[in-house]
Amino acid sequence: MSYLDRIATCRRWDPAAYRPLVIDGRTLGRVSHGVARRLAAFPEVFVVREDAVALAPGLDDFESRSRAVAEVLGEMKARGEIPLWRGEDYPVVARWGAAPALKIERAAVPLLGTRGFGVHLNGLVQSARGLSMWVAKRAANKQTAPGKLDHLVAGGQPFGLGVRENLIKEAGEEAGVPAELAARAVAVGAVSYRCERPEGLRDDVLFCYDLELPENFTPQNTDGEVESFALWPIAEVLARIRDTEDFKFNVNLVVLDLAIRHGLIAPDDPDYQEIWQGLRLAE
Amino acid sequence: MSYLDRIATCRRWDPAAYRPLVIDGRTLGRVSHGVARRLAAFPEVFVVREDAVALAPGLDDFESRSRAVAEVLGEMKARGEIPLWRGEDYPVVARWGAAPALKIERAAVPLLGTRGFGVHLNGLVQSARGLSMWVAKRAANKQTAPGKLDHLVAGGQPFGLGVRENLIKEAGEEAGVPAELAARAVAVGAVSYRCERPEGLRDDVLFCYDLELPENFTPQNTDGEVESFALWPIAEVLARIRDTEDFKFNVNLVVLDLAIRHGLIAPDDPDYQEIWQGLRLAE
Repeated sequence: MSYLDRIATCRRWDPAAYRPLVIDGRTLGRVSHGVARRLAAFPEVFVVREDAVALAPGLDDFESRSRAVAEVLGEMKARGEIPLWRGEDYPVVARWGAAPALKIERAAVPLLGTRGFGVHLNGLVQSARGLSMWVAKRAANKQTAPGKLDHLVAGGQPFGLGVRENLIKEAGEEAGVPAELAARAVAVGAVSYRCERPEGLRDDVLFCYDLELPENFTPQNTDGEVESFALWPIAEVLARIRDTEDFKFNVNLVVLDLAIRHGLIAPDDPDYQEIWQGLRLAE
Repeated sequence: MSYLDRIATCRRWDPAAYRPLVIDGRTLGRVSHGVARRLAAFPEVFVVREDAVALAPGLDDFESRSRAVAEVLGEMKARGEIPLWRGEDYPVVARWGAAPALKIERAAVPLLGTRGFGVHLNGLVQSARGLSMWVAKRAANKQTAPGKLDHLVAGGQPFGLGVRENLIKEAGEEAGVPAELAARAVAVGAVSYRCERPEGLRDDVLFCYDLELPENFTPQNTDGEVESFALWPIAEVLARIRDTEDFKFNVNLVVLDLAIRHGLIAPDDPDYQEIWQGLRLAE
């Protein structure tokens, strides 16, 4: 077991199992052949070919596309084909901040293989004992990744909300971090990956933040999604990541990025180049 | 002018102008067609085809390859075809720490388009005025990038020397940083790029370090390669990078990486994703 195994998990997908979702001449998603067959039942919205899925002619602006696709997704939801409906919209874009081609319900993002966005916070404590990190254990009844180890704060990044505002909101809900404390978080970069998960194809960019917390701060979960929090020496976090799959799959990447930035994994590690290259997709 | 222009400069090369240097079935360099024609004069060492350059049969270990290629390079040097001879060896590898296929003189690295390695140090001062960075102005008589703005410490990473040891050595020679102070530098990641420069094809990985310096530290150049040092507020460094080409081409990437890690460029910048993706090659 090694850090590279955790990275490989986040990059495992079979291109032959998908066809591109092409909008305005750009690949903005990837649809499995099974989903493509289901979308073919809605020819007024999706043009399904063997080599690609496109939107029907006439669906050429944000509003008309978002409305038409929402009708299809609502129909699929009614048939029970989209579990974990969230009631949150995600933009369909190649990169955060670009003008979205349309917006779609979050639960449909892995179904259409469009890009997802999230925000992850490394909750850090510097003390005489060195660097420690707050680790959350996800509730056993969570629908995704029950019981897995997680960041102090992590969540999806919906459309229409600033990344920092979202972080501060999530920090309050998930860990009881007061807004004025959460506002001290520093944007430190991002990681990205594309992999097959039970819910579909995840093609995500996660914005990463570091927050130094006072030693006397204790997190409190307020939304029932966390079973417990514990403060771990960073070396224990890294050993657990290296040796087990106990952390949620994508949390591993964000912590490895932290380890690179803080000199905990340094150029003398023979895997150094593969690790830092593995934390980001090229596009 | 924008940060993306600085990144584009570091990624500009014409694949059609090169043929791969293939060793043990792997592309470990890229040779321009003109250089390939010159290498064809040494058929006992180089097998030059239209679509690739390889080493001659029988050159199948580190020692024999290094010796044979050194003879060719020595001959080319004698003909005046390799300026800036350094007398330092670089490993020929796909990634730092891998077993090298051979070693070659540093001056030949851009000629054969093999991967180069370097170390760059962000010399930082935290004060009541915020974050500042020491900026060096390269001597006007330097052979590469005369008069350009540079890091406090930056240098090539030769074969057989640890990255951190090299950093400490260069910090002493270039900026008069005492070894015990330089040893506090933190490895913070790396940047990589591939671009055409006057000396040939640069395909480099730069290991990046941050060093927080006391306010009363003043750098002293001891090797004559720096005209002057000045402490700049980080916002001025970034503005100069955004608006001019005054910084040496690859220094821009290392400082943009710093800006991403320190939250000086954050996800609300519409170019965020292109910037952090642009700081590293995929392979």
